[in-house]
Amino acid sequence: MGLDTRVNCCPDGLVTDRRRRIKVLDCTIRDGGLCNQWQFDHGVVKRVYEALLDSGIDYMEVGYKTRPGLADPKTDGPWRFCAESDLAQVVERNEKLQIATMVDVGRIDASDIPPCSDSSIDVIRIATYSHQMEEALRLLDHCLEQGYETFMNVMAVSTLAPDDVDEFLVKLAGSGIHNVAIVDSFGALYPYHVRYLVHKYMNYLGENIKVGVHFHNNQQQAFANSIAAIDEGVDFVDATLHGIGRGAGNCPLELLLFYLDNPKYDARPILDLVEEFASMRDDLRWGYHLPYAISGFFNIHPRSAMDRMARVDRYQVREMYETLSKRAENTDE
Amino acid sequence: MGLDTRVNCCPDGLVTDRRRRIKVLDCTIRDGGLCNQWQFDHGVVKRVYEALLDSGIDYMEVGYKTRPGLADPKTDGPWRFCAESDLAQVVERNEKLQIATMVDVGRIDASDIPPCSDSSIDVIRIATYSHQMEEALRLLDHCLEQGYETFMNVMAVSTLAPDDVDEFLVKLAGSGIHNVAIVDSFGALYPYHVRYLVHKYMNYLGENIKVGVHFHNNQQQAFANSIAAIDEGVDFVDATLHGIGRGAGNCPLELLLFYLDNPKYDARPILDLVEEFASMRDDLRWGYHLPYAISGFFNIHPRSAMDRMARVDRYQVREMYETLSKRAENTDE
Repeated sequence: MGLDTRVNCCPDGLVTDRRRRIKVLDCTIRDGGLCNQWQFDHGVVKRVYEALLDSGIDYMEVGYKTRPGLADPKTDGPWRFCAESDLAQVVERNEKLQIATMVDVGRIDASDIPPCSDSSIDVIRIATYSHQMEEALRLLDHCLEQGYETFMNVMAVSTLAPDDVDEFLVKLAGSGIHNVAIVDSFGALYPYHVRYLVHKYMNYLGENIKVGVHFHNNQQQAFANSIAAIDEGVDFVDATLHGIGRGAGNCPLELLLFYLDNPKYDARPILDLVEEFASMRDDLRWGYHLPYAISGFFNIHPRSAMDRMARVDRYQVREMYETLSKRAENTDE
Repeated sequence: MGLDTRVNCCPDGLVTDRRRRIKVLDCTIRDGGLCNQWQFDHGVVKRVYEALLDSGIDYMEVGYKTRPGLADPKTDGPWRFCAESDLAQVVERNEKLQIATMVDVGRIDASDIPPCSDSSIDVIRIATYSHQMEEALRLLDHCLEQGYETFMNVMAVSTLAPDDVDEFLVKLAGSGIHNVAIVDSFGALYPYHVRYLVHKYMNYLGENIKVGVHFHNNQQQAFANSIAAIDEGVDFVDATLHGIGRGAGNCPLELLLFYLDNPKYDARPILDLVEEFASMRDDLRWGYHLPYAISGFFNIHPRSAMDRMARVDRYQVREMYETLSKRAENTDE
């Protein structure tokens, strides 16, 4: 690029080494589906699949698997369910791009997850809150028996006391899980939090479990926190096309590929698709907006900010800020 | 806030100490004016002044001073010129909020800068490219004689070879300048570049010259790079309301105040004003857009990206990306 030569930085080469080891997980359809009830038509999802394949991305998370009857197929699109018949229309199992789905603890039964050899899915990612860890571990055992590479996202780590984090990490260390992500569901973390958590996760989980990150962009930190995590040595990073995702969205895949600067990835097929996703942004309203910034800063679920974003007075936030300030003062020791 | 207690990070207290020492320079009208030819009416500028005063911000950069006749007052609004008669309608000299204007080397004569005691201006900030440093130093001498606190922005540091940076820093170290900013005009820097440059600037400039940062948000790094600079110990940070500024814009002031978490600042008057600025965003098109991300990544002036953003096919960027990729390959050793 010339830039590194220009400013003559990166003297120890660590940044380069750590960028090289990263694998990339695209969760455009899964997390982006939280904005539009997974109403992506099959053509869009197939274009995403092909672009990810052509660009050399490692994983595509194509949606959720959900217990039949739990969600209404009239309101929620096919990627809430990931039926094999839908998957077969858009993805092919292949050696380059691994296909993943997410399952939410409490919204899936083990019996809903077929053997890996009967499915288009290579990877199951279990999303859980820490207090549901026993059920998450039972699901994990089932997924491993069925032959899946298995990931776990323990959500909203920014709300947990340090001992609670230690406790679930100890359980995961002996569980057989392949990958664990640090998940900033509320977009609350700054890089100094990320550095601390990366060290903790890596120390507790040991050498045989990969550590990754899934960040939200409420405070324009999703990509920056990903960089901080990469610098500290994580193994994989989640990203989405143009940053689509719940609330403020996620780390933009295109920016991540620029930063990784790794010839195994080709950014061009991703850039070609961004125009299509950018056209959804005004309607779905992810990106930098004040209500999301405030909910992130106060470390609360983006739900109330998303409700506010649907209103005309969405930016009249003084009351929101003052209410959350008072609540924060009252809960601090 | 509870969040730091929750994730139990920041064990050495350095982050807190370094946040405490930061002064904030708002350049909403000056850099934002690059989006709209400084066509802010006096009412808007007065509301910005009052909000900054009420929130405890340290500096307000209210526009440029420009040599009479150089720009056309029919196309460029009053904050391109900062006539005393306009300033008198919107700001008052006071002890809390220092009023600054920027002057561009080559677009101002020393004789256009009156004695500080005759002006509403407390601070002159000289913007220069490194190759214009001799003229910048002559302007500096004049500003110091006239009694101003004087800053210098050496622009586009990402395009300079390390020796060139050393050379201008040596000149500035003995110049009498009060403040020097690291300026990422093209939005090209990542945090590892910032850390390197902060160390270099601080080492060369010594203890009596303050070091600050002015970042652009092409790659969603303006706030993140500001955090990296704060962590390394800089003295001041530039920001703007809702991130308004040329191209992708700047570090959003509201996010910076959240991060600083310093009781001397009150974010509420800023939040009250963001709605007014957010309403300009669709029209003026700062924020995260693919052409800016690409020009930032390839370390070029945002001009071509801004031209592209005015077109309907603004997101059809493959050719832009491929052209810049080839050029970068050819210029790398």
